[in-house]
Amino acid sequence: MAEFVNVAVDAMGGDNAPVEIVKGAIDAVNENHHVKVYLTGQEELINRELAKYTYNKDQIEVVHASEVIETAEPPVMAIRRKKDSSIVKALYLVKDGTCDAYVSAGSTGATLVGGQVIVGRIKGVERPPLAPLIPTEKGCSLLIDCGANVDARPSHLVQFAKMGSVYMESVMGVKNPKVGIVNIGAEEEKGNALVKETYPLLKNCPDIHFIGSIEARDIPAGDADVIVCEAFVGNVILKMYEGVGGTLIKKVKEGMMTSLRSKIGALLVKPALKNTLKAFDLEQYGGAPLLGLNGLVVKTHGSSSSIEIKNSILQCITFTEQDMNQKIKEKITMEEN
Amino acid sequence: MAEFVNVAVDAMGGDNAPVEIVKGAIDAVNENHHVKVYLTGQEELINRELAKYTYNKDQIEVVHASEVIETAEPPVMAIRRKKDSSIVKALYLVKDGTCDAYVSAGSTGATLVGGQVIVGRIKGVERPPLAPLIPTEKGCSLLIDCGANVDARPSHLVQFAKMGSVYMESVMGVKNPKVGIVNIGAEEEKGNALVKETYPLLKNCPDIHFIGSIEARDIPAGDADVIVCEAFVGNVILKMYEGVGGTLIKKVKEGMMTSLRSKIGALLVKPALKNTLKAFDLEQYGGAPLLGLNGLVVKTHGSSSSIEIKNSILQCITFTEQDMNQKIKEKITMEEN
Repeated sequence: MAEFVNVAVDAMGGDNAPVEIVKGAIDAVNENHHVKVYLTGQEELINRELAKYTYNKDQIEVVHASEVIETAEPPVMAIRRKKDSSIVKALYLVKDGTCDAYVSAGSTGATLVGGQVIVGRIKGVERPPLAPLIPTEKGCSLLIDCGANVDARPSHLVQFAKMGSVYMESVMGVKNPKVGIVNIGAEEEKGNALVKETYPLLKNCPDIHFIGSIEARDIPAGDADVIVCEAFVGNVILKMYEGVGGTLIKKVKEGMMTSLRSKIGALLVKPALKNTLKAFDLEQYGGAPLLGLNGLVVKTHGSSSSIEIKNSILQCITFTEQDMNQKIKEKITMEEN
Repeated sequence: MAEFVNVAVDAMGGDNAPVEIVKGAIDAVNENHHVKVYLTGQEELINRELAKYTYNKDQIEVVHASEVIETAEPPVMAIRRKKDSSIVKALYLVKDGTCDAYVSAGSTGATLVGGQVIVGRIKGVERPPLAPLIPTEKGCSLLIDCGANVDARPSHLVQFAKMGSVYMESVMGVKNPKVGIVNIGAEEEKGNALVKETYPLLKNCPDIHFIGSIEARDIPAGDADVIVCEAFVGNVILKMYEGVGGTLIKKVKEGMMTSLRSKIGALLVKPALKNTLKAFDLEQYGGAPLLGLNGLVVKTHGSSSSIEIKNSILQCITFTEQDMNQKIKEKITMEEN
């Protein structure tokens, strides 16, 4: 049997911790025998959850952490002070080489800060971007950056394009992934100062497949595989997905309940609709990797269910097996020469 | 009978000109007898369309313009050179007082530039924002700015908040409209440099009802009546509405066609769904006003049908009757003291 891929999972993070987190870990190890999960957090609570399931004991280890970092806490301070928190302990497991990857549904700020401070950046990476997969008509695209790097510079966006290309090619298996920059028009002269400065840099970048500007309207159609933008815009795109999607599905459901005729119709279309809309569910795609660190750090939704946790853990296997970080290192260094 | 509200309409602008534009004008004058439409463009073409309809001849006048500004043309140059274009002629009708308002489905750039250069800004307004109404669960909200003012400054955003409040109160009849600033988190310390600087200015603004940050996810729910952001972000929000909405509705339709059972169901739910989704159709709300000019300038979608043109023309009546520009003038001057 091959060696384990070791994943540190913050068992205390997110709205549904530890119940859904522990269930996600169990589902992951039961589905894949090459992964070992280190659950960090309050031992007693975690063991009580683990006791509910049947699983290979070699594949799960509990690492006690007495403290929890709350979502509302200022992240820099929390990482510095709460040395015995589930997030800090899990990140140190990656730092010291025990684990290859880290998954948390907890504080985004603490994960972003802790990832950089504890795990550390790959040499040459200026800012590690948070890059979720978003559903499109053609499958999914990588939205890079949705993280905390607001007010980014053009050189950061160029690195995002490179790292995103490596990710889509290695982990998602997309050959020569198409890179687009989010813009307010298709023409090269359109955009704000950041986009206007970044556009020619991307155009002259030999090791990516740059296709030019992409308007937000064309993102859901899947016109680009790697969607480059600074974090404020990325966050707006991600949350518009959730907001417009949620509201429209609610409206469709309400519409179906307006008459007896439509209620009968609803019963008939329900199974087919459920399958189609599943493809547009953000949770299906697991968490968002924070790229460019010496180890994989994955942030999942605060509201993560066991499915998203499981998918995020399994995503770490491909990432590790593909030696993503080595590839990122090579691509970033190439730029410097 | 009251005096006419006079509206200049660019008959040559947009994908469906002049057919849908002329039809929209006819529908508007047939629905409301207090409006007169000046159609600018190629006389012969326009008259051929007009000949198809029955209407009160006093309510429509054709103003010949031999040139057309194409969407791809650089706007500043086009406005300067094409003096006999349908856009420039229509804007001069507002400038010289013949018309109160202007409606075009043509080049956004030419409308934004021409609006400022020909019609001119209200004294004190730094940048005229383009402010479309977007559908929400509670009705609609004003998204301000979606225009060409990228890289805006905090003082611009404060003026957007004021002008947007006047619009929602006067034209849409919303008492004490709630103003939110688009942000990537709810807390005051979150955001990019622009939002962090603007937030305290809005908080200390006595003549608006500021409710703080709004995350993109909460926009479709209708949590704020006036949604303040700079133009790049506004454009992304508007286009994500179109993109996610369009893709999801397509997916729902495809899902309904997957089996015989679901096809029968689809027939039964169709009429009810149509009504519900109509409320989420951007075209229902007419065009987007460019606020802060000495006259009303309204930009409609390039793909405008006669319905959107009609709604945009009728919107001009309320705007003029409510003496919006006088109210904006007062609110902006108040700030200066």
